[in-house]
Amino acid sequence: MNEDGTRVVGVVLLGFGTIGSSVYRMIEKEWESILESTGVELRVVHILDNDPAKVGVGAPAHLFSSDPHAVLSDPAVDVVVELIGGVETAFEFIDLAFRNGKDVVTANKQLVANRGAALFDLARDLGRQLRFEASVAGAVPVIRVMREGMFAAGLDTVYGIVNGTTNYILTAMYEGAGGYSDTLARAQELGYAEADPTADVGGGDAAAKMAILASIAYRSRVTMADVTYEGIEAVSLEDVQYAKDFGFVVKLVGAARLIDGRVSVRVHPALVPREHLLASINGSINAVYLQGDAIGEIMLTGPGAGGDPTATAVVADIVTIAGTERAGFLQNCSCYRNLEFLPENLAESAFFIRMQVEDRAGVLAQISSIFGEHGVSIESMIQKGHSDEAELVLITYPSVEESFFRAIDGIAGLSCVRSRPMTIRVL
Amino acid sequence: MNEDGTRVVGVVLLGFGTIGSSVYRMIEKEWESILESTGVELRVVHILDNDPAKVGVGAPAHLFSSDPHAVLSDPAVDVVVELIGGVETAFEFIDLAFRNGKDVVTANKQLVANRGAALFDLARDLGRQLRFEASVAGAVPVIRVMREGMFAAGLDTVYGIVNGTTNYILTAMYEGAGGYSDTLARAQELGYAEADPTADVGGGDAAAKMAILASIAYRSRVTMADVTYEGIEAVSLEDVQYAKDFGFVVKLVGAARLIDGRVSVRVHPALVPREHLLASINGSINAVYLQGDAIGEIMLTGPGAGGDPTATAVVADIVTIAGTERAGFLQNCSCYRNLEFLPENLAESAFFIRMQVEDRAGVLAQISSIFGEHGVSIESMIQKGHSDEAELVLITYPSVEESFFRAIDGIAGLSCVRSRPMTIRVL
Repeated sequence: MNEDGTRVVGVVLLGFGTIGSSVYRMIEKEWESILESTGVELRVVHILDNDPAKVGVGAPAHLFSSDPHAVLSDPAVDVVVELIGGVETAFEFIDLAFRNGKDVVTANKQLVANRGAALFDLARDLGRQLRFEASVAGAVPVIRVMREGMFAAGLDTVYGIVNGTTNYILTAMYEGAGGYSDTLARAQELGYAEADPTADVGGGDAAAKMAILASIAYRSRVTMADVTYEGIEAVSLEDVQYAKDFGFVVKLVGAARLIDGRVSVRVHPALVPREHLLASINGSINAVYLQGDAIGEIMLTGPGAGGDPTATAVVADIVTIAGTERAGFLQNCSCYRNLEFLPENLAESAFFIRMQVEDRAGVLAQISSIFGEHGVSIESMIQKGHSDEAELVLITYPSVEESFFRAIDGIAGLSCVRSRPMTIRVL
Repeated sequence: MNEDGTRVVGVVLLGFGTIGSSVYRMIEKEWESILESTGVELRVVHILDNDPAKVGVGAPAHLFSSDPHAVLSDPAVDVVVELIGGVETAFEFIDLAFRNGKDVVTANKQLVANRGAALFDLARDLGRQLRFEASVAGAVPVIRVMREGMFAAGLDTVYGIVNGTTNYILTAMYEGAGGYSDTLARAQELGYAEADPTADVGGGDAAAKMAILASIAYRSRVTMADVTYEGIEAVSLEDVQYAKDFGFVVKLVGAARLIDGRVSVRVHPALVPREHLLASINGSINAVYLQGDAIGEIMLTGPGAGGDPTATAVVADIVTIAGTERAGFLQNCSCYRNLEFLPENLAESAFFIRMQVEDRAGVLAQISSIFGEHGVSIESMIQKGHSDEAELVLITYPSVEESFFRAIDGIAGLSCVRSRPMTIRVL
């Protein structure tokens, strides 16, 4: 603490890639206004990066170090910013930082989704803070909002469009720009999708983020392993266009629900009604939608990626740590409960179904009868004939998924059905 | 502080109307989960309300008091929740609370918009906290987000749809449900508009909220008196429908901008392009849209009014105060600067214009020539003739408003123009 009541807060950046250099630049640019408005002077005292090509590029050479133990034990360091990614090394460094009395900010969704519970325990036991706003939805401060703003909201539903790549692709398909493969290829050209897009299009990236959001929303321990997820690879242009005809937009939706005290977290493509707030989220932006008894519906939306948006969240976390001393409060807010998970066989959903069938009398009767046996009711239907083959598109009312999929198995086995029906949940 | 590290925080509710009773109910319902997650036990120790009909209704009779001095000086009180409304008495009570060492939460937008600067000073000088999330946009935690999450965002634009009544009316008009008066009458029947709707439809309510948002966004002193505002009373069904034809939605928009270090805060009807995030905000919900160099676009949306949503924000503020001890940090975040305001004569806007003109040759030439003299360029135009009269609808490119209105004065004076043109800004 200085004589004028201000305080210098030493920061170390672990990793100096896009986000790290953006954080550095922002602190250089904003430190005076942050000091004026908070009484806290942020000062980057070390940058840990092994890449010699980065030394002195975007930050003075003397700040760079390749010795994690030295920088993590320097008494001038108050806040450690972990931006190296991966799980094991990052965990080790944060563990060491906590033990050395440092607070930690991370943007590492895999780390928090996989090892969050252990990190929260460690932080609590050692009286340290861990903040990770940048791990989900970039600049959109959804973790802060849920962690500190929703104590009496009665939250029971969190929907997330938290993967920009898939939302970019599905938006383009909705607008008729092309099928899945073409659109993915274009997204790759434009930098909206990576060369290996598996984590994005397969739903894994969204699953990690939903594990984090569910932890915070329900203050319970949810890890990546607790999330059931599927991606958008099987969604075709036909599916998206039929959904449009029925008044829906197809989105990759993360859904974290609290049902009778049990948590359910899933990521899957979903038909979103056009009048739903989430339906207006187009392109690569992210959105998190919160529902609760006391709040009705709240939605936050903004850029989910990019160096500067993510760095904005990191800087806010650093300032918040610097400005709040009761670590216990902030720590305990995170996730102290061990709520049960809802067994998959109790999940209920309405479905969109598309299938190729023979175009002859009696086909619909056979299909309807199988749905009926399994307690699945049809809400609406379109049938389009092409010579001897017809395409049948149905929307069901909600039913137990286990029964629904048994009905689909039965229908897939009918001789009049050409291939296994495509199914997509309806939100 | 208790032996187990938890702490009892005594709360007094000043006022026990819709919000007050909702706050009480929430604390009764959630105190254990709040204690578990934060280590803080909220306990309502007094309710100040003069209305004898309220005593014992929704809260035990022994909590009620009609003696402000007694409840505000009780050592068992830590946080004072001001819900009585109005400016002078509320200010006095808060002043007294601060002097007695209490922190304060208020939902009172008129108080914060008019006397915020004095209250912030007082709080800072006395080392107390003042929180007022509920004063703007109900459950939507926009103040928390801007105050604590946007240090490096480079915010320069805050747009708000912060009045549910006007947005309900304009949405209904857009959907063709009727003209302004009919729709207002129906909104009154449904409880979306008050018997005296002046503060809502005249823009004053939104102006108070925008003063608060601008203060926080730019950490500068903006009061109600610094906001230029107009309402939606003059917006006709024809305007809304023509705007729709041009691809716009009409909204009452609050716009707080930072332009070359100067602040501009205005509230007025505006044509919002259909692809803008704000265009999807329909009915009585609120939205706040933030733009900045580092974040691109962020939008928060949710219910702007109602007992429970507002009470959610109040409870979060109480918990945050209870959980953070460095009052200076939070205080200083609010608004310490005295930025200049942008003079009105430097404002620039594009405009929508609708006017009745004689349907004869030469009329358009006269009008265009006046626009040209004042440096106003036309972007698009529709003309519709009805017998000898025509309706002319134009959209201009942005120009200096002062010149634009001089052009409108000139055009209004033309003999071929039947009445003063209707003008609405384009966002």
